[in-house]
Amino acid sequence: MTSTVEVSPAARRSAELEDEITADPSRFRILTGDRPTGPLHLGHYFGTLHNRVRLQRRGVELGLVIADYQVLTDRDVADDLETHVLGLVADYLAAGIDPDEAMIFTHSAVTALNQLMLPFLSLVTVPELQRNPTVKEEIGHSRQAGVSGLMFTYPAHQAADILFCKANLVPVGADQLPHLEVTRLIARRFNDRHGPVFGEPEALLSSAPLLLGTDGTKMSKSRGNAITLGTTAEETARLIRGAKTDAHRHITYEPGTRPEVASLVLLAALCEDRDPGEVAAEVGSGGAAALKARVTEAVNGAFAPLRARRAELAADPGYLRSVLRAGNARATELAEATLAQVREVMGTRY
Amino acid sequence: MTSTVEVSPAARRSAELEDEITADPSRFRILTGDRPTGPLHLGHYFGTLHNRVRLQRRGVELGLVIADYQVLTDRDVADDLETHVLGLVADYLAAGIDPDEAMIFTHSAVTALNQLMLPFLSLVTVPELQRNPTVKEEIGHSRQAGVSGLMFTYPAHQAADILFCKANLVPVGADQLPHLEVTRLIARRFNDRHGPVFGEPEALLSSAPLLLGTDGTKMSKSRGNAITLGTTAEETARLIRGAKTDAHRHITYEPGTRPEVASLVLLAALCEDRDPGEVAAEVGSGGAAALKARVTEAVNGAFAPLRARRAELAADPGYLRSVLRAGNARATELAEATLAQVREVMGTRY
Repeated sequence: MTSTVEVSPAARRSAELEDEITADPSRFRILTGDRPTGPLHLGHYFGTLHNRVRLQRRGVELGLVIADYQVLTDRDVADDLETHVLGLVADYLAAGIDPDEAMIFTHSAVTALNQLMLPFLSLVTVPELQRNPTVKEEIGHSRQAGVSGLMFTYPAHQAADILFCKANLVPVGADQLPHLEVTRLIARRFNDRHGPVFGEPEALLSSAPLLLGTDGTKMSKSRGNAITLGTTAEETARLIRGAKTDAHRHITYEPGTRPEVASLVLLAALCEDRDPGEVAAEVGSGGAAALKARVTEAVNGAFAPLRARRAELAADPGYLRSVLRAGNARATELAEATLAQVREVMGTRY
Repeated sequence: MTSTVEVSPAARRSAELEDEITADPSRFRILTGDRPTGPLHLGHYFGTLHNRVRLQRRGVELGLVIADYQVLTDRDVADDLETHVLGLVADYLAAGIDPDEAMIFTHSAVTALNQLMLPFLSLVTVPELQRNPTVKEEIGHSRQAGVSGLMFTYPAHQAADILFCKANLVPVGADQLPHLEVTRLIARRFNDRHGPVFGEPEALLSSAPLLLGTDGTKMSKSRGNAITLGTTAEETARLIRGAKTDAHRHITYEPGTRPEVASLVLLAALCEDRDPGEVAAEVGSGGAAALKARVTEAVNGAFAPLRARRAELAADPGYLRSVLRAGNARATELAEATLAQVREVMGTRY
């Protein structure tokens, strides 16, 4: 008997999309991005950044939004926005994003994109916005008296991000599928009510490997458990030395039962482009110390060129700003063209 | 003993503001406007339009926003936006608004104004938006599955209307005071968090006379009980002939106990610029028929010049569009200057 693995419709469609990209990459435009809350870490790299670079190298057009308005409620971040934004540009370029091909832009600079949020908000109801799981989660986690109006309306802002440039592909994790559903809903309703302007973007499910932070919880800058892209070899060694493992000496790759050890094995395997089971077998009875030495060497070896590029880029903020200005100009041009179409079909060209 | 009338702090402040306007009108900029849901009627004229013309003639700068995005959920209106928008411009000019002095603009055309909504939304929470009585009322009345995201966020959009042009005076009825409080809250929080950009606009309470529709309920286009500014003398006569009165023959002015008759008396008095008590006394035992004849004559007499101007204006949509284009250009200039300041203090000029 052959074993069967259940595949979701979204995953099946994503596999088809990969084939379609191979056949004709020029048909696709991807929109994705980040909130500039701090430097990107290895979890981001192997989770999304690596995949973006891969898709761009295959010839897909790439738009990267730096969601600078979506961090305003975090006061520490808001107080030093420029550092965070330029740091993100440096991370992108160091990771291999080609700024001549990609459109890297910030929300705050693309006025016509932001205006799209208003007609889009008219197409969704408050209960529909509330149903969005990311907004729900944020409402649950909110330490403030209440979630901000901006966070609440984020699904409509995200629809504007994707639709202003007519992106047709959005790389997402399975948990972000409902977000994209709001965008698809808005596109459909807009077309029905006003006229055919927007396509319905499709999800490109990424099977991102799950890297844990060095304390065994979710990798996150704010928890101090993350190895950032731009950090030093010494800091990398220090963080991995302090990483949580478990009581069993023999190293195996068992994500279900030994998540901390498995995450370290996986990290070494990703850096070495090897199979994690093989890496675990090689370390075997060497125990946690040998595993950590191997992971440290793997990370520092694999990321040395990226880190050198990143240090050069960080030393030249003028260049990073020029990349952003070019991206903002291109995004503005696209957004104004889309807004002109929107005004036309809505009958607001007086 | 002299009788004392209780005066609210808002009313007292409004009286002071009237004196300050007299002393130096150039210190004041007013922002007000309408949703383009249909032609303005006599309730609008005596409720707000008349007051706007009065303030403009006293030398106060006037901004009038035509909230074309705020009608999108009304399908019938959205399907013929241009007619409604140009009709509103014609109503304004016919009523005496001077287009060389006033800035008449539409939301859809002033992109930088709309962008302000995003940082503003970050400054208010969902519970604060929900508390707004107009939004609450709209949620209660909503015939849809739920109120739209655009209606829900309307207080933040309104803050953008008022603050983009640094208006310092907003004519409101007492029921709209909470709306203005959200704008003042946003201005304060923005200044606290990012830097001093906005003043806190003040309410200019208008003691608008309450005109009922011809059926004795609230005057409203959708109820068919409203005499529109641009209607004919014949239609005016027809509507007033069918107006609801009561069983008492003798005409008096008692708004509390005889609201329908009092509203008709008030309408004649407003048109004749007379005291309603005197008008009622003059009609006296003439009864409802005499009252209606008097009201018809008063309205048709008072509004004949306005109606003639409105007919001329309506016949020249090219001119109406040129007024709107000039207002949109001026509003865009102001909005871009404010957005530049906002970007500066927020640290989003990369």
